[in-house]
Amino acid sequence: MKEFQLIEQFFKNKGQKRRDVMLGIGDDCALVQPAEGKVIAISCDTLVEGVHFFADMPAHALGYKSLAVNLSDLAAMGAEPAWMTLALSLPDVNQQWLADFSSGLFEAAEYYGVALVGGDTTRGPRCINVTINGQVPKGKALKRSGAKIGDWVFVTGSLGDSALGLDMLRNKQVIKPEHKEYLLNRHYYPTPRVLAGQALRGLASSAIDLSDGLVSDLSHILKASNVGAVIDANAIPLSSSLTESVGAEQALAYALTGGEDYELLFTVPEAQRGAIDTALLHAGVKFVKIGQICSGNKIKFTLDGQPFTPEFKGFEHF
Amino acid sequence: MKEFQLIEQFFKNKGQKRRDVMLGIGDDCALVQPAEGKVIAISCDTLVEGVHFFADMPAHALGYKSLAVNLSDLAAMGAEPAWMTLALSLPDVNQQWLADFSSGLFEAAEYYGVALVGGDTTRGPRCINVTINGQVPKGKALKRSGAKIGDWVFVTGSLGDSALGLDMLRNKQVIKPEHKEYLLNRHYYPTPRVLAGQALRGLASSAIDLSDGLVSDLSHILKASNVGAVIDANAIPLSSSLTESVGAEQALAYALTGGEDYELLFTVPEAQRGAIDTALLHAGVKFVKIGQICSGNKIKFTLDGQPFTPEFKGFEHF
Repeated sequence: MKEFQLIEQFFKNKGQKRRDVMLGIGDDCALVQPAEGKVIAISCDTLVEGVHFFADMPAHALGYKSLAVNLSDLAAMGAEPAWMTLALSLPDVNQQWLADFSSGLFEAAEYYGVALVGGDTTRGPRCINVTINGQVPKGKALKRSGAKIGDWVFVTGSLGDSALGLDMLRNKQVIKPEHKEYLLNRHYYPTPRVLAGQALRGLASSAIDLSDGLVSDLSHILKASNVGAVIDANAIPLSSSLTESVGAEQALAYALTGGEDYELLFTVPEAQRGAIDTALLHAGVKFVKIGQICSGNKIKFTLDGQPFTPEFKGFEHF
Repeated sequence: MKEFQLIEQFFKNKGQKRRDVMLGIGDDCALVQPAEGKVIAISCDTLVEGVHFFADMPAHALGYKSLAVNLSDLAAMGAEPAWMTLALSLPDVNQQWLADFSSGLFEAAEYYGVALVGGDTTRGPRCINVTINGQVPKGKALKRSGAKIGDWVFVTGSLGDSALGLDMLRNKQVIKPEHKEYLLNRHYYPTPRVLAGQALRGLASSAIDLSDGLVSDLSHILKASNVGAVIDANAIPLSSSLTESVGAEQALAYALTGGEDYELLFTVPEAQRGAIDTALLHAGVKFVKIGQICSGNKIKFTLDGQPFTPEFKGFEHF
């Protein structure tokens, strides 16, 4: 199967259509019409076999996740998803694998309204790069740099599930049958908080998506905003699947350093705190206050009201 | 060296600055301001070690070429280069290699006015993906689909040099010392015809860049435009380095199927033919008429005024 046929069969004229795509796959470039009064948000993420995913990861999940992790970056800016390109390197042409991958990719694309406008398919070690374009009203993007002393720190969803799902796949943790599907889905099918991100425009002072773990990603906000934070470890949202599987202490470790949650971490000034409930009501996502921005440049933790220093692998890096 | 440090040292705040980049590397997304009255042209190309380049390709050339091949796609649409993202997979962190790669990439970026706004660096088999964004006035983009019967067929520059340069590197051809540097540069440092592409807006009826070879790329225009073409093989521009190295017959084979020329192939209606000279004067590139669009859906060749069927490897595919 030649590249042209492969694109024709699995990627061209599939998935979400958008009126602002004036020319899609099949020319030297795609042409898209940006909306008036908006700026373009651009991000890209690469997934490499053996580094970011195992060779036996189901192709449907891989297709879905390749887009979801990029959508999560748009969510963290408060941007509306628009267009993507896909660079796909494959060691061979496996039609079933391609059908499944394409199906997972377009499932996410249709749900979030993204059009695939171009790409490149090449022979090579299995590797997927999605470059995503979103749009956000001028001056309304959520950045990492806006957190101020006194702002409240929030997160969406629950943390640590994806990392435990990964350890389950690696046979590093034995999980009860009733929790397996939930944890696997949290790892394979993360939910980018796209609507929540848009709802936070004008309310949140800063935002980031949790790809590397709470400690690491909160540190990015603190560095960019030149502030510190006090985090109440008791307030960090943990699923029952996580705590029942590994106990409270290890659950906290997963939540703080596990990574790949793709939840949003954001800060809100006191004056906007009341408006958050209403704004996020329609986004259909739980969120919870876990701390407050303070002076300094470090993260301090409390547990049961007492200062607390998490001690586990990974923490010393930050 | 961690990813953050690598980006900081080799990629962040380097190269071309643009006033329309409102937020560059370092947040979840970059933010860019599209120009009024223009549409965005998007393209991406991947280069995989062992497939698109040899492991010993100089990193400077690889950096330059990674961007140049994408700029060539913008040129073929008549678009002005604007922003790019870089997805870089590397098996290890070699600081000298990275310094050279970055230097080559930014040499092209500065010359053509492209800002690096984001990307992803990962561990993995060596692989480079650049996704480029350009801008083109609404309704003025050059497409593959506009060629009409009677239009003249033109190409820029000379064809086949890059493919011979590659065969020289592969030790498939022995080249005289006086031609080596020229052929190597044509392979390692292709010149994307960015200004020529912009100059052709409103004049050319269709355009494509020559990445796969004249026969293959002209076929894309014919298919998209639903027409045929008669090409005068004597008119195809060949460099003296090419003809002196391999003789006239083999030179033609390189020109027709060699690939990686990154010259422009375009069609011009008779009514615009006189305007082409003036328009391309400032683009600083030679161009020549090589044939005419006709009915049918095939490429017919003439040589010395007689019908001619090229017979060489690769031709039968089209």
